[in-house]
Amino acid sequence: MLPRKDLFDLPEGVIYLDGNSLGPLPKGAAARAAHVITEEWGQQLIRAWNSAGWMELPRRVGDRIAPLIGAPAGSVATGDTLSIKVYQALAAALRMRPDRRVILSDNGNFPSDLYMAQGLIETIGQGYELRTPAPQDVAAAITPEVAVVMLTQVDYRTGRMHDMQAITRAAHQAGAVMIWDLAHSAGAVPVQLADVGAEFAVGCTYKYLNGGPGAPAFIYVRPDLVDSVQPALAGWLGHKAPFAMEPLYRPAMSTERLRVGTPPVVQLSVLDAALDVWDEVKMGTLRAASIHLSQLFITEVEKLCPQLRLVSPSDPAQRGSQVSFAFPDGYAAMQALIDRGVIGDFRAPDIMRFGITPLYLDEQDIRQAARILAEVITDELWNDPKYQTRAAVT
Amino acid sequence: MLPRKDLFDLPEGVIYLDGNSLGPLPKGAAARAAHVITEEWGQQLIRAWNSAGWMELPRRVGDRIAPLIGAPAGSVATGDTLSIKVYQALAAALRMRPDRRVILSDNGNFPSDLYMAQGLIETIGQGYELRTPAPQDVAAAITPEVAVVMLTQVDYRTGRMHDMQAITRAAHQAGAVMIWDLAHSAGAVPVQLADVGAEFAVGCTYKYLNGGPGAPAFIYVRPDLVDSVQPALAGWLGHKAPFAMEPLYRPAMSTERLRVGTPPVVQLSVLDAALDVWDEVKMGTLRAASIHLSQLFITEVEKLCPQLRLVSPSDPAQRGSQVSFAFPDGYAAMQALIDRGVIGDFRAPDIMRFGITPLYLDEQDIRQAARILAEVITDELWNDPKYQTRAAVT
Repeated sequence: MLPRKDLFDLPEGVIYLDGNSLGPLPKGAAARAAHVITEEWGQQLIRAWNSAGWMELPRRVGDRIAPLIGAPAGSVATGDTLSIKVYQALAAALRMRPDRRVILSDNGNFPSDLYMAQGLIETIGQGYELRTPAPQDVAAAITPEVAVVMLTQVDYRTGRMHDMQAITRAAHQAGAVMIWDLAHSAGAVPVQLADVGAEFAVGCTYKYLNGGPGAPAFIYVRPDLVDSVQPALAGWLGHKAPFAMEPLYRPAMSTERLRVGTPPVVQLSVLDAALDVWDEVKMGTLRAASIHLSQLFITEVEKLCPQLRLVSPSDPAQRGSQVSFAFPDGYAAMQALIDRGVIGDFRAPDIMRFGITPLYLDEQDIRQAARILAEVITDELWNDPKYQTRAAVT
Repeated sequence: MLPRKDLFDLPEGVIYLDGNSLGPLPKGAAARAAHVITEEWGQQLIRAWNSAGWMELPRRVGDRIAPLIGAPAGSVATGDTLSIKVYQALAAALRMRPDRRVILSDNGNFPSDLYMAQGLIETIGQGYELRTPAPQDVAAAITPEVAVVMLTQVDYRTGRMHDMQAITRAAHQAGAVMIWDLAHSAGAVPVQLADVGAEFAVGCTYKYLNGGPGAPAFIYVRPDLVDSVQPALAGWLGHKAPFAMEPLYRPAMSTERLRVGTPPVVQLSVLDAALDVWDEVKMGTLRAASIHLSQLFITEVEKLCPQLRLVSPSDPAQRGSQVSFAFPDGYAAMQALIDRGVIGDFRAPDIMRFGITPLYLDEQDIRQAARILAEVITDELWNDPKYQTRAAVT
């Protein structure tokens, strides 16, 4: 049953609607960090690579993420950042289609995914090209010169969802490789990677998986490809025999070949503890609760704040686990809202985002959040100079 | 004055000679981790990106590393792993010499540096080539087709040091770009990057800088180049305006352009706390103590264990802050030694490595370590089956 607020250390008086950006602190994460630092690092020192299982940690954590995205054990590697994992997937995908020169994405994709593609293209040269049609035009743009289709399933601004199955099928029919970014999917909506058949998927773990600020990313490779993908980021921990210290790179015959450098042991341990939350969560139950709470929030906000315009799809089947509204003074309004204990976030140019996370939100939270939002909007509380100065938020 | 054992939480009964692989736990690191997790993440949640200074952390930590490697403030970015930073420097360097096709390194370089070069070459294609002569032959191999010279200053196996000044001069005379890997230099030997004039330097922070397992890496760019280097790993946090969410990558006009994805806030905070140790350390004093203790260790071991052969340079000026001996049964001998509380490590095929770290080692430790090593070697204590089975150690 949901919610499970008892599994989190949530601050008093806060309704947290930003788990789509940074999930809250799961109970057990702080104790795990203390243990890894004081006992493992402090007492076992270098021996902890074996005695505390540090060397196995990236694979072990990958195996805990796998069932949450419908992937088999052994198919998910963890480490680095999502941007790095995008680059890794993209570089490998291009090598699988050496005669094609087009990377197809969409103009709603998270900018860093597009930037990494641009950086890769600049590095390779040779006439590669990134195409970014509007999301609804992607399917029609999958032409025979497309080497790889790279999309984020859930739009970071609006929550709009691509149809993974249909687009992957279209990509494969055109002979293209498919990469899905699951940043706003993992832990938010049910994903069945094994059924979808995409070659690669990547994602981050600090949003709906609550892994903490800067938690490592993950990359999935379809099991039949794992022994043939060519790692561009050919780090020693992806080597078949890292400690043989051979002069030539030989990739491991497993998903381990997508490991790069020394793993971030402290962050991985915190993430590992955070994943305990998922032991008894059924993604179907979570999704149903997410849709229920999202619909409630939309209904309440549309009733109380007609100034706001829903920019998320109104059909729950087309929407991830967030609800976004456009409002010209959205930045200031969000600051005023946060000051009143309702934490969402803002994305340029005018989008107020609200993450709906049934693990630690209930109907009462949602109604209360809508009421406070209405107060901010209706009374123009955002129209205070202190809310007008912009600062960076991630 | 050194040592400063009071600054570290060292286990009872251990003499730690492996700070060249993983530095021990500085006091304050555990408390900082607890604070960042419980107070910043737990209580401030997403707001901590601003309120707790998370967004500034990579630059602020870079500015603390800079003086330890003779670099000016603002020239060092932190994040990712050393392997990623090697790739980043190498890809940028190749773009600075588009008409040349040779990466020159040496066959004593750390394998991951060579692997990353191989991965980059495979990704770019176009006839690039990695050359790896023996370390002593590098200077002579800097010919006009060399685009970039990429070397690790201190050899990870033997501690042998390259002459940074002379090789950088030779590289520049031949029109090549110079990249130094300072993995075994930062916090170990005085480095004056500003005087050396190399274009790039990279390094890790979990060895002599004691940043903890998986602590983030750093990259230095010579200040006159900072606004012109082209990032291959064009992540959003290196963008000029990350939160403008623009479709096209525009690099920041600072070292920030070498940031990639979301920073590992917990690991960076632990590293930040670990760097407090260096506030009152003079690198000249540290180096003198390192040489003194290293000479003492060599003298004692050569006297007590004639079976061991010194493979580090005997001239302290040619050696970093480690001492290595070859011994055919080195792996088993190291296990037996560790069992007796003296922790060094082993590198294939036959090298017993001992890190000399004057921050937390004194003469008594060194003499005692040599005595216990002599006991293990002379009495053939390593000749116990339990020490013969190999396991991975980093």
